[in-house]
Formats: sequence, C-alpha cells, structure tokens
Amino acid sequence: MTRHYGVLVVGGGLAGLAAGRTLAAAGVDAAVLEARDRVGGKTHSTHTDHGDVVEYGGQWIGADQERVHGLVEEFDIDTRPQYGDGSVLGRVDGERYVEETYEDVLRSLPGRSGAELFQAFEEIERCVDQVPRDTPQDAPRAAEWDATTLRTWADRQFDTPEARAAFERMVPGIYTAEPAEMSFLFFCYYARTAGGFDTVAGLDHERDSHAAVVVDVQSIARSMAGELGDAVHCDRPVSRIVQDDGGVTVHTPGRAYSADYVVVALPPTLAGRLAYEPVLPAARDELTQRMPNGSVVKCHLRYRAPFWREDGLSGFVEDDVGPANYYFDDGYPDGETGRLVGFVCGANAREWVGHTPEERRRALTDQLVSVFDDERFGTPIDYLERSWPTEPYSRGAYHGYPTPGTMTACWDAIREPVGRIHWAGSETATRWYGHMDGAIRSGERAADEVRGRLG
Amino acid sequence: MTRHYGVLVVGGGLAGLAAGRTLAAAGVDAAVLEARDRVGGKTHSTHTDHGDVVEYGGQWIGADQERVHGLVEEFDIDTRPQYGDGSVLGRVDGERYVEETYEDVLRSLPGRSGAELFQAFEEIERCVDQVPRDTPQDAPRAAEWDATTLRTWADRQFDTPEARAAFERMVPGIYTAEPAEMSFLFFCYYARTAGGFDTVAGLDHERDSHAAVVVDVQSIARSMAGELGDAVHCDRPVSRIVQDDGGVTVHTPGRAYSADYVVVALPPTLAGRLAYEPVLPAARDELTQRMPNGSVVKCHLRYRAPFWREDGLSGFVEDDVGPANYYFDDGYPDGETGRLVGFVCGANAREWVGHTPEERRRALTDQLVSVFDDERFGTPIDYLERSWPTEPYSRGAYHGYPTPGTMTACWDAIREPVGRIHWAGSETATRWYGHMDGAIRSGERAADEVRGRLG
Repeated sequence: MTRHYGVLVVGGGLAGLAAGRTLAAAGVDAAVLEARDRVGGKTHSTHTDHGDVVEYGGQWIGADQERVHGLVEEFDIDTRPQYGDGSVLGRVDGERYVEETYEDVLRSLPGRSGAELFQAFEEIERCVDQVPRDTPQDAPRAAEWDATTLRTWADRQFDTPEARAAFERMVPGIYTAEPAEMSFLFFCYYARTAGGFDTVAGLDHERDSHAAVVVDVQSIARSMAGELGDAVHCDRPVSRIVQDDGGVTVHTPGRAYSADYVVVALPPTLAGRLAYEPVLPAARDELTQRMPNGSVVKCHLRYRAPFWREDGLSGFVEDDVGPANYYFDDGYPDGETGRLVGFVCGANAREWVGHTPEERRRALTDQLVSVFDDERFGTPIDYLERSWPTEPYSRGAYHGYPTPGTMTACWDAIREPVGRIHWAGSETATRWYGHMDGAIRSGERAADEVRGRLG
Repeated sequence: MTRHYGVLVVGGGLAGLAAGRTLAAAGVDAAVLEARDRVGGKTHSTHTDHGDVVEYGGQWIGADQERVHGLVEEFDIDTRPQYGDGSVLGRVDGERYVEETYEDVLRSLPGRSGAELFQAFEEIERCVDQVPRDTPQDAPRAAEWDATTLRTWADRQFDTPEARAAFERMVPGIYTAEPAEMSFLFFCYYARTAGGFDTVAGLDHERDSHAAVVVDVQSIARSMAGELGDAVHCDRPVSRIVQDDGGVTVHTPGRAYSADYVVVALPPTLAGRLAYEPVLPAARDELTQRMPNGSVVKCHLRYRAPFWREDGLSGFVEDDVGPANYYFDDGYPDGETGRLVGFVCGANAREWVGHTPEERRRALTDQLVSVFDDERFGTPIDYLERSWPTEPYSRGAYHGYPTPGTMTACWDAIREPVGRIHWAGSETATRWYGHMDGAIRSGERAADEVRGRLG
C-alpha cells in the first residue's frame, strides 16, 4: 500500500470513469481500478481488417441522451446516423413479410390486433407516467405491478393472440429478459427513465434511442481514461473492500489501495460478489441477490457489400425463429462493406450461449439465408461476436434488472451509501437506466455525493 | 499446498458433511473446507445458561424425512415432540381469535371463504402432483406457471378476500419469500419435493414437517465432522476454484488445497460469489444470479414458565401485524422454562432486519403482550436471535429460491457438474428441497456422482 487516495473507483466502465473524471475535475485525488486489461466495460470497439470499427457492446445513442452527447461533443468523437432506408423484413409463425417500417408491421397485424397493440402502447405510456423516476417503489400501484410479471400483464391486456405475440416478441431485444422474468413495475420504470416506452421501442423517431451510432464508442471511455492518466489502473480485479472509521482499503491480487471513500461502479450482481468488511447490510445484499444481468450475445456478420440495400431492404429484421431476435444494418450510409448486427436475446441467448462461436455463426447465416430467402447471406467475409453472459467481468448485458417483487422490497438500497461506499452503474440511474447515458449520469451523481462528504 | 486430495468439499453444512462422510466411507481421501469457525451451516445450537439448548437455525424434522432420521438414530441424538396441546391464537385485521387447531382457524373463515380456501388447497395438490421432482421445468404447464407469481395465482384463484389473505399469510413463514417473489411453479415444486403442500403447511399431521424437534440439532453436523476428524478444516473461507486437466485447486486465505474433484455445497447465491477459473458456463452463472436466499430472522423469547399452557394455549400464534409472522412453543412437553420461537419472515424481515437486536426484542415482546393480551409476555428472562440475511456465510435462509421465469430458463444447470465441480446443497435436492433432509440427500448424491468418476 503506497499512498492514500481521496476516492477509489471500482470499475472502469462509463460509470466509473465518469465518477473518476468528475472527482478529478474537482481536485480530488481519485483512482480507478479496472479488472480487465482495458477500460470501457460494456463498450468495447475493435478495428477490423477492413479498416472500420465494430462494436462488441453499446453503440447507439438517442437524441435526448444529453450526457453521452455531451461527452461525444467534448471529445470530438464521430457519430453516424443509423441506416434506415428501405423496408423492414420479418418472419412470424413461418410467414415472411416485408413492410415499409416496423410501425407498419405492427399496424398491419391481422384483424383488430394491430389496433389493439397500439391501444396497449397507449395504456403502457399511461402506466409509465405513474412511476416516479426517483422512487418507482412509490408508484400508486407499485405493489400490484411489482407482483405481476410482464407476461401476466400481457395475458390480461390482450384479447388477440397476434397482438400479444407481437408485444412479447419486442421485449427481449429491448430488455434482454423475457416477459416471464420481469415485473410490470420494472418494465414501466425502465421506460420511464428513458422518457417513454415509445422511445426504447423505437416507435418515437424523434427520441429514438437508436438514432445514431457512435463510431469507436469505446473512445468515450478511452478519452476519460486519458484525462485521468496513470490514475486508471487496469488488470486490478477488486476482491475485497474493508472499511473502518479511518478509511477504506480495496484489495486486488498482490496489492491493496487505501482511500477515504469508494465508488463501486459495477452492475449489482457483480458488486454483490465482492467481499465486504464489515459485511454489507442485509437490505443491500438482498438487493444484489435479486438483480441478475440480462442475457444477450451480440453478433456481427460482414459481407462484401450491403446487397440487401439494392433490393430496397433496410437490413432491419425481426424473426421469431432465431437465433437472433433482431438484426440491424450496421453499416455506414455510403458504406462499401455490408454489415449486419444480430442480437440473440433472452431465451434465445440461453439456447445458444453454450454453443461455439462457429456453431452460432452457422446458425445465424442459416437464419439470414432463410429469412431473406437469399443464398448470399450464407457467405459472410467476417464474423465477430461477444457472448456477454460468458464474460467474467460482465456476466450478462445490457444491464441488471430487479426480479418480480424486488423493487417494492429492496429498492431503497439501490443508491443508498453503505458507510464509505457509494454506488454507481447504469442500474442506479434515474435517467436512461441501462444505457450509456445513464451510466455516465450515475458516475457523476456518485462523484457528487462523495464530494459533498469530502467537504 | 501440502497434499493432494481425492475430493474437496466446500462448505461444512449438512450437505457438505454428508458428502465428505459418504466419500470417506467409500475410502476416498476427502476434506471439507468450512468458512466459519464451526460446522453445521444453518444448523447452529447453543447451550443456554438455563441448561437447555436453543436452535438458531433448523430444528424440526418430519416423520418421513428418512435421511435426517437415519442420522439422528445412527448418532443416537435426542428428539422431542413439538408441543401442541391447547388452542392456537391469532390476530387478523385487528381481531383476535382463539381456535382449537390452525385448521379450525382456516375452516372458520367468514362466509364461504373457509370452504374456498380448502378448495384451493385441493387445487394446489393437483398442481403439485403435475410437477416432476427431477425436472420441474418439464411440468405440462411449466412455462405458464413459471411466468405467474404466486400472488397472481392467488388473485385468480380466490373470490373471497378473506381466503386469499389467509393463504397469502401462510406463505412467508413456509417459503421465507413473499407471494410476489416466487413463481407458482417453484411454489408447487418445493411442496412436491416434500410430498405435498399439506405437509409443508402443517395441514397433514401424519407427515407434518414440524412433527419433532431435534435436541441440539447441530450435533448431527458435529457427529459427521467427528467421523471425518482432521479432514474438516474450519476458518477456511474459499474464494477461488481453479480447475484444469490435472485437477482442482481451491484457494483460501493463505492456503491452497488440491484435489481431483470438488463438491461445492453452498446455496447457489453464495456459490455464485466464488471466483472460478475457467469461468463458469453462462448457464450456471445465470442460475446463481437468479436464486436469492429467503429472508428470515429467528427469535427466541424465554420466560420463567410456559404460563400460556396453563391458559390452555399451545403457544402457536399467527399475527398479521408482526414483526413475527408466527410463533411456536419451543419448550419441552414438561419443560419448566417457557420458550417461544418467533419467525420474522419475508416483508417483515425486510422491515426489521436493519434494526438492532434490542429493538427487535422490544417489538416482539410488545407484539406478544398485544396478541396474548397478557403483560407477562413483556418480561422475558432471555432473548436470543439470529438474523440470517446478515450472516456473511449464509446471507439468508431457509434456502435459495428461483425467481419467476428461472426454473424454465435455467434449471438444467442446478445439478449439472462443471468439469471437476459437482454441486450439493438443499436447493439441489429432489426430496425435501430447502430442508435438513434434502441437504443430507444432496451431499450423498453429489458424493455418489464423484465416486462414479473416481472409478
């Protein structure tokens, strides 16, 4: 143990780096301890042999995500619009369809099911508006909604099986959890922090959370880390946090660090795996036992050209067969390389996460050949993927979510400091929960809390 | 690292000791590593100043719990019948009642609600019978039941609010979780492993899981540990398990142990906190993220005499006010000391776990004075308690439970070995899940698996 810091930040993702940077800017002697050999957490960019950048993790930003936009501008990072020209393609119950927009897909559901689905969206927005951003557990119907799985809610809400199925198909791609696994209260709360379900579902084009792609998104983290310089320590997996009246000691293999305060900027399920002395209060530990991470494998398929564009297709695909629930065109508007990104989410991730990358590559290309009815999808020039549930320092993505009954039982502990320990991470954000923007906000908020105590 | 074992067992509770003992009996060189300074896990007995024994954890055994009975007989351990003479007492919606039996309480609910409740019990048993003990995820209606919280099930099942409320009051004391937190599938599965809901709810007196009390229950663990001798290592909290083609290394502070195989005999949420190299498969890690432990504080109040018995009361109390959901008379049939044991469960545990023992003592005595309407309950001679969610090497009790949606998504991993690692613990038992009997069975089953591999 060589020196005493003002604040140690555990985790060098966007939340932790935003905390460290905010503290450093205020003149606090802060250091960031990161388990991996890189910063960025669930943002991880790779430069390919083809001269472009592929994102293993987060990549999209929405128009009103002010804090991530702020950093993108401040660090002069490139963005590009999400490609969206052309029709969307899908397959449901073995039937292929092509429509102008995804909204058209939903509106053209058979009989009155399309109208019923949009009535349900209106009902959802009414419910979302009733959930307070700071204290969702105080929503008027919190106890009832937290005891109701989203699947049960859908069962009650929908008369037509087509509307219900269309709704339930949307969920895993947005939440990386199945409707059986989350409560209606969390479903609404997540949307509330984003400004509405229409925003996270891509139904509000002005506020669409997929409006733009950050080029080399990890450069946001690298830029913050660059400011912090040698205050960022990689390859330092924290195993234990010991606090007493005099301060905090943070243990990593072969080295311990001391400070006045700690900001733990990890998803709750990983924060819960550290050893704490004294042990964490039951209220906090019970929360971390009840906030698993979502399940997703993100897969990039690259082709010699975006030939689907010539056929008038946007590259957006919805498929109820899988492995991927959704695909997006991930290429530049005028890109020469064809790029599709597929999301294998929820139950599909459970089915496919135990397979090899080669097996997944084959299954995804088979899926694309079948759903596009086009053999050209069988021969990608490149395949890259990231199985987030397998990553030891993530163990899932996009974020942790409270299981049914947890928000009303344990949510008081989500941001409540424990002695000298403060909590960050996108799950603690009251704006853009689970998003890069929320992660940044959470780190800044935790830094402000600690600064207030440092005086 | 001094020697190479055949098998290392992580956890010296009933599951781990049963595994170690079974292996040793088969001539395998096995050792048990226990984090605490004592064996027994969630069985922990203390000899009081009054010359008797108080149980901080498990204490009851049922008539057809063959394995725990087998050890009790083998080690010549005393048992005593649960005291049950006299009437039961309760308070619901501010109204006190006294009835001959708890079953009478339920049958005498107002109007048709009593009959409705017993119809629901019949419906529950029909559902319980449909859940396979080995593979509950294969129940005919598994997907539907796993997506339905028990609260939602009750909402659909009951017409009368009195029957529903009576049912929901029963749940936390049995499951240490609220109806909002568990799926109907798990609710049924747990009962299935016990032979029926009537058994765990104390409605079948022949198979009642509370039929007898083991005197000094921890002596079961101590007896098994005694057989194992210096093969049981206490104060050895395992932090990391490393496996490769040659074997397994188990790391504890300052010392590592090597073996051919490991049996991890911890509740899933604690097993998930160890570091594993290579990292656990996603299927296993996702399961441990979704199996929190229940919430319970067990509280013993002791009086100069069991004066309630003279008033014709059994000491069984149900109360919807709290802190304790239930009390039992914990005394000997002819005991001179009055003993009551109260269970603060589920939401009540969340409310009270952050208070001091002194505050809980006062709240419980106030509760007893009020519900018995008898000032003598205000002056116990002794108060002992154990807040299980606060215990660093338990972090909850009686057991872990899968959150809604988890059994159908992740249950394939509950007993599936990972390389050289096998899994024990009462949550892996297909008979008496969550009970001492199930813990013993699970350890014996895991030991048999490993023996099969040792050849």
